[in-house]
Amino acid sequence: MEITLHSIGIIHTPFRTKEESPIQGAFRPDAEGTVEVCAEYAPALQDIETFSHLYLIYRFDRAGEVILSRPTFLDDEPHGVFASRHPCRPNGLGLSVVRLLRREGNILHVAGIDVLDGTPLIDIKPYIPLFDCYPEASAGWTAGKELRQKPPGRE
Amino acid sequence: MEITLHSIGIIHTPFRTKEESPIQGAFRPDAEGTVEVCAEYAPALQDIETFSHLYLIYRFDRAGEVILSRPTFLDDEPHGVFASRHPCRPNGLGLSVVRLLRREGNILHVAGIDVLDGTPLIDIKPYIPLFDCYPEASAGWTAGKELRQKPPGRE
Repeated sequence: MEITLHSIGIIHTPFRTKEESPIQGAFRPDAEGTVEVCAEYAPALQDIETFSHLYLIYRFDRAGEVILSRPTFLDDEPHGVFASRHPCRPNGLGLSVVRLLRREGNILHVAGIDVLDGTPLIDIKPYIPLFDCYPEASAGWTAGKELRQKPPGRE
Repeated sequence: MEITLHSIGIIHTPFRTKEESPIQGAFRPDAEGTVEVCAEYAPALQDIETFSHLYLIYRFDRAGEVILSRPTFLDDEPHGVFASRHPCRPNGLGLSVVRLLRREGNILHVAGIDVLDGTPLIDIKPYIPLFDCYPEASAGWTAGKELRQKPPGRE
């Protein structure tokens, strides 16, 4: 089944290169950016300012080759890409939780952002703790992995 | 920017109609289903069984007209679709957190599933508490809304 999507906006961040961007926004809660939603979709933002956290779904538009099992940034063992948040994945969609700082019309100011500047935005959804917060969830193979520098040359 | 996606599998659930499906999986934690990943992507599942919770990204393939601000299932006031989890949204992607019960090859047995039977699967990502669990997040306009029956005829 083939599906055609259109970007609904663009994400602006301080990160111009993969080397600059954090492994995950949770590792850089201070990193701020803006989410510019196309003006035609502004009515879809009604009441978004009542939420403190949002999901962004976006396109990894500068991702490399899809390899189904490969090492990640967090460690050197291969893991399936559906068992990691690796950007080089079938369909190339990314998912991040960000904090909403404020809204100015069709611009959302956010923090804890980890994507590359100019990333195409596909969807915004409110983060709703009742549906989305599972403190009992296992960290799986990521348990105990320390934050580290991205290994040089690794996608 | 136009993006073409292909489904990577199919989600099987007990819910044949919109009336049968729960408003969110969190309201039906006992509801079980299976996620059938296309055999060609089986290597991408390596180590997925180390996680207890997964994100599923899927296509709302039976959603109706996109109206940018509209009432939801939870209350009768209009909210922007980017401020709700409404299925009728630009790009028509859904996002759910499910519990992984077990893996059998390229079949994932999951619980807390809320989608219609036969829904096309777009991506699977591990739910990682460090990145995804924000107990302090505001419930926004959904705060204090009780679980209720879906209003008849409402999409």
